This record gives sequence, C-alpha cells and structure tokens, in this order.
Amino acid sequence: MAEKRYLMTPGPTPVPPEVLAAMALPIVHHRSPDFRPTYRQCLDRLKEVYRTQGEVLLYTASGTAGLESVVANLTSPGDRVVVVSAGYFGERWAQIAEVYGCEVEHMRYEWGEAPAADDLAARLSEIGGATAVLVTQSETSTGVVADVRAFAAVTKEAGALIGVDAISSLGAIPCETDEWSLDSVVSGSQKALMAPPGLSTVSVSDAAWKARDRASAPRFYLDWERTRVAQESLDAAFTPAVSIVIGLNVALGLILEKGLEAAFERHVRLGRACREGIKAMGLELFSPDEDTSAVVTAVRVPEPVDGTQFLLDLRDRMGITLAPGQGPLKGKVFRIGHIGFFDVFDITTALAGIELALAEAGADLERGVAVTRALETYEHQPV
Amino acid sequence: MAEKRYLMTPGPTPVPPEVLAAMALPIVHHRSPDFRPTYRQCLDRLKEVYRTQGEVLLYTASGTAGLESVVANLTSPGDRVVVVSAGYFGERWAQIAEVYGCEVEHMRYEWGEAPAADDLAARLSEIGGATAVLVTQSETSTGVVADVRAFAAVTKEAGALIGVDAISSLGAIPCETDEWSLDSVVSGSQKALMAPPGLSTVSVSDAAWKARDRASAPRFYLDWERTRVAQESLDAAFTPAVSIVIGLNVALGLILEKGLEAAFERHVRLGRACREGIKAMGLELFSPDEDTSAVVTAVRVPEPVDGTQFLLDLRDRMGITLAPGQGPLKGKVFRIGHIGFFDVFDITTALAGIELALAEAGADLERGVAVTRALETYEHQPV
Repeated sequence: MAEKRYLMTPGPTPVPPEVLAAMALPIVHHRSPDFRPTYRQCLDRLKEVYRTQGEVLLYTASGTAGLESVVANLTSPGDRVVVVSAGYFGERWAQIAEVYGCEVEHMRYEWGEAPAADDLAARLSEIGGATAVLVTQSETSTGVVADVRAFAAVTKEAGALIGVDAISSLGAIPCETDEWSLDSVVSGSQKALMAPPGLSTVSVSDAAWKARDRASAPRFYLDWERTRVAQESLDAAFTPAVSIVIGLNVALGLILEKGLEAAFERHVRLGRACREGIKAMGLELFSPDEDTSAVVTAVRVPEPVDGTQFLLDLRDRMGITLAPGQGPLKGKVFRIGHIGFFDVFDITTALAGIELALAEAGADLERGVAVTRALETYEHQPV
Repeated sequence: MAEKRYLMTPGPTPVPPEVLAAMALPIVHHRSPDFRPTYRQCLDRLKEVYRTQGEVLLYTASGTAGLESVVANLTSPGDRVVVVSAGYFGERWAQIAEVYGCEVEHMRYEWGEAPAADDLAARLSEIGGATAVLVTQSETSTGVVADVRAFAAVTKEAGALIGVDAISSLGAIPCETDEWSLDSVVSGSQKALMAPPGLSTVSVSDAAWKARDRASAPRFYLDWERTRVAQESLDAAFTPAVSIVIGLNVALGLILEKGLEAAFERHVRLGRACREGIKAMGLELFSPDEDTSAVVTAVRVPEPVDGTQFLLDLRDRMGITLAPGQGPLKGKVFRIGHIGFFDVFDITTALAGIELALAEAGADLERGVAVTRALETYEHQPV
C-alpha cells in the first residue's frame, strides 16, 4: 500500500488540520459553558451558509436521516409526493417516501440527465398538485446539478412544499434557502462543509413548520419541533456528537472568513480545471461540461480498462481514493470529488494518478498535458 | 473560569488520550481498506462487550435513536407495550412508544425506587401479555440499577420481547445479552465505552429479527435489516461517523485488553469509594448504597445550599463538571458519574471539590475525611 493517502471522493472529504486539532481536545459536556457558546456559534454559522433567517436543525446522524426527517415531518400516510430523480440519491428520496406510505409520483430521468422544471410543472398540473416535491441539488452519483431555484418556483406555484437534498452541494454552489423559498434543505458535515461525517443539518421554512403540525407520520429523534425547542435554549434534545460539532464550527469559521462567494468561485474553478484536464488526456466526461458541475466530475472508464481494478490500483499503489460509479454506472464511470478542503494541486494529483494508472492499464491517452491544462484553466479563467 | 477541566458527568465521559489521538488522523473513506478492517474490528469488539453472537448494529446517532429503533422495528401501531420506568430515561421509552401509536402500559415507580420483576410478572398476567417490555438497566437520573436478568425471565415467560436501555451501563456492569435472552440492548459510545458521543449500538436477538418482519411502523434510517445487510458486507448503509468509529475501536481495545470483568470490578470499587466518601462527609445518598450502583452516584443537596448555584460554582471556579438532578430532582440532587475512563483519583478530586464548595456555601460537613475514606475503600475492599 502507498503510505501517503489522498482522499478525493465526494464525501467524506479531506478535513483541514485545524478541524482535526480542535476535535482532539478533551471531551466537554454538551450542557456546559465549555460547549454552549460553540454550539450557538456553529448554529449561527450554519444559518449564514444556508442563507436563512430560520434556525437550522442540527442532528447527530448521517445525511440520509436528514432526508428522512423531511418526509417524517411533512407527510402523512397516503399523501402524494413528487420525487424528481436522475441518479442514486434521487432514488433514496423515493425509497424513504415509500416507506412512510406516501403515494409517490416518481419523475425518473436517465442517470446523468438534468431534470427540467417545466416537466415538473406539467406533472404537478396533470396530477392536481402534491403535498411535497423532493429534489436533489447535486446528484453526487452523476455530477449533475439541478436548477433548484426553478424547481422551487414551479413547486410554490402549485402550492406544494419543496424538500432539497443539498448534502453534497451546500457550501460548494449557491443555495439560497430563503430567497428561493426552499422549504427544507438537508445537508451534511462531511462534504463542502469540511468536517468529518456524523452531523446532518436541516432548514425549515415557515410553511414547512405549519405543515409539520398537520403531518401524522411518527417521529421522535427526527421530530423537528423537539430539536428546535432544544436548540433555542442551547439545550440539545439528545447528547450531540460534541467533537464533530466543535470541528464543524471551526470548519464553518474557515469558510465564512473568506466568504461563501469565494467558496463558490473556487469550486467552479476546481470543476473547470478537473474537466479540462480530463478532456486534455482524451477521456470522456459523464458529467455535464458546465460550470454548475462544480461538486464532482464523473468520467467514463475508457476501453480496455476494468473500472473496478483501475480504482483499486490507484488506491493501493498510489494512495489515491476516487469514487466508483454507483448503481447502473458501477464499473462504467469513476468520480473525482472536488468539494471542501480542496485545492488545484489536489486536482493535479488526481489527474496525474489517473493518467498513470489508465496508461498502465492499456488505455490510449494523451500523456503529459492534463496537469498543465488544469493549472492553466484554474489560473487563467477566474469566474 | 478554572483552566483545567474535570468532566465527571454520566455522559459524555472523559476519553483516553489514545482515542483522541486516533480521531485526529486524516479522514478516511468508509468504503476503503483504510476503514473496513477497523469497522469490522469495532463491530467484533462490540459483540464481545455485548456478550452476544449476533451482529451489533452501529448507528451514527445519539442513544435515543437506538431506543427509537427498538420501537420502530418491533411494534405496529396499536401494539401493547409495557414500559417499566423509575426516572427520566424510563419516561423516554414511554414517550417514544406513544409517538409510534403503541398502547403503553406504563409501570411508573417513584424516581429512585428499584423496579421489581414480580410487579412486571403480575402486570403482564393481568393485561394478558404484551408485544414488548421496555426497561432501563441503569437509570442515569437516579443511579438505580434494575435487575435486567430477572425482568427478562419474566418477560420471556409471558411470551413478550424485552428491549433494554443499557446506554450508561454497558461495559460498566454485567449485561449478558445472549445468556439473559435480551432481545434488543441499546447503548452509546459516550458512556462506559470511553468514546465521544455520536454512535448508538443495538443488539437484536433471533426472536427480535422475526418480530421485525411483522412490525409495520415506518423506518428507513433506523431500519435494522438495512444496517445488518450493509454491515455484513462491511458496506455501511449510510456514511458513518468514521472518526468516532475509529475512536470507539481504540477504546474498546483498551477495555478488552484488560477484560470486561476487570472493568466491572473497577466500576464497583469506584462506586463504593464514591459513596463512602460522600457518607464520610455527612451527606445523604439518593442512589441505593449497593454495589450495583456502579454507574452514577446521586447525592441530596444539603441545607442551606442552592443546588444549582453549587454546581455552577464547582464548575466555574474549580473546573469540575458534575450533573444536576433531572426532572423533579432538579436542584435537589447532584450526580457524580464514574463510568468509563475513570480512576479513584477522579473520585477524590470530585469529593475534594464537593467538600470545598458545599462548605463555602454554608453546609454543615465533616471536613478532611472524605478523600482518605474513598482511597481506603477503593484499596481495601476489592470485589
């Protein structure tokens, strides 16, 4: 095994050393002054990152539990819910809604396609509305970023609530919770927010709070009201993962110090540099070649390479961990995450490793151009 | 504020430096060889601590979510469930079961009383059985430890399933999952298991697996089967809190290196030392003065002391964090946790601080005897 590791998956992502150092401090009690000010600061910083005036609920849980909280707090069995999906994580929305007994209208696009708000408008009109629409901002399995703003407008027009999976996108690309009227936005600590996995974050609009009071699905741990009341008195409803909250607070401080806009710009440039490098060596993108694809770049595995063996080789010999294709894309694509604590030299490391491993596996590549192309793209094409 | 901190609450508990150091290493991917062997080792060590042959499910969540998983996987709306409660955490079982639409038979004891298995047998006979019985092994709010083995025998006799909250007790006092026929035992990383908060663990008996297939409550994140299938292939169902799993694995290694019996013995002696010290200074125990009370010692606040102010004083001036009374005991008792990474000198620090702060607050105390008494008790009365 290579000794030095390079984590380049779309979550968990690398974490700044300041975050790791803060997490190594002795454990503090969650209801003590050693924790409460950090807790409040972290919650306030989350509001800034979410661009919302409302309280962002913080759960000790994986992102999926945050998604489940949306269904559990907004629906009752039999409610009609529209799921817009074009990949692995869109499917998860549908699975959760089905488990909760919702009547699921599943708008399923081909994996890699970009869902269109017009289609949603047509479907909502056809079925006479819905309780909620569930969408994925950045579909991590394909790299496609949906126009959440347009989806929200169409959803509001139809009088429904919109739930947004922004787990891999929040902090990487714009997500204007209040301005776009997003009713519930779910994210996680381990993606663009540069902290370890273990926390899920959930925003709730005024309309969503009202809907919650009517929704009858059972929920205890994920009940929004229980967590809101507790957060307002800084008295966590349940013992939170204090170490990770402390780490997340440091990470959010680093992000906000430079500002969210700088983070968005950096992600656009990282995505561009990655795609240009990939194309320069003659590989084919699976993700759209657009500035919006700033979270993860999916690439088709070239002939005659075995996609699974290639990733093992890259990881075991070179220490570089990329992500495989998921579901029907398994073995057919590989994915480079470029979210969070990521610099252009992480992109060039990924490209250099990919070039070497694919060439050794017999792929017909343009050698020696990808790294320089990525560097030039990053430097010379500021947003 | 005092600069040096002493965390003496019954959770979160202090964590060994080896655990913190392991958690400060760079983040690894949960589906990579950097994590999978650790994950398997941690899951195997959990089985040892649980004393079970079955897989222990590992959730990224607070302990309460583990409790909720028992209700969500074992019951359908309308099912009869008996809750045996004698404190804050017993009440939580009842709240969860009510949220899930169960018909709750609540056997409520006074806070501080020890529930009796005979009472449960009588009640089960009277109501003609139940789907499940939910009990708390160590009621952290009072320090009372229930005889879970006896409760299980009575429950099995009545053909019901038993769910056990062992969040603060697992690893501190005996809990023989398989031998006692406990159907589901819930614990958490942040108590006797000596890791930071963020993980909940859940065992499932064969009978509980069968019951799960019939139970109709909705569940996705907390669905046992989804996590079991994923763990068997070491392919976590959802991104776990990798840092905390790594920390927990180190902590479990430390516990098992000396053996569980040594941990049990140490906790008995710590509890004894704490209670003898408390009595020596003339204070009154709220917890039973028995060897089973090895997890937390609850003490009545003496006249004329203000219990809330006393704890603030202890914490702010001396850096010692104890736990307050919960619910009806707020202001009337204080609690000293002695679980996990705890030594007799932690007990003597707690006693010394308590003695000083109470004396300054005007309590009539025997000065200068508690520390020595605790040390003598710890040394000279091995189990």
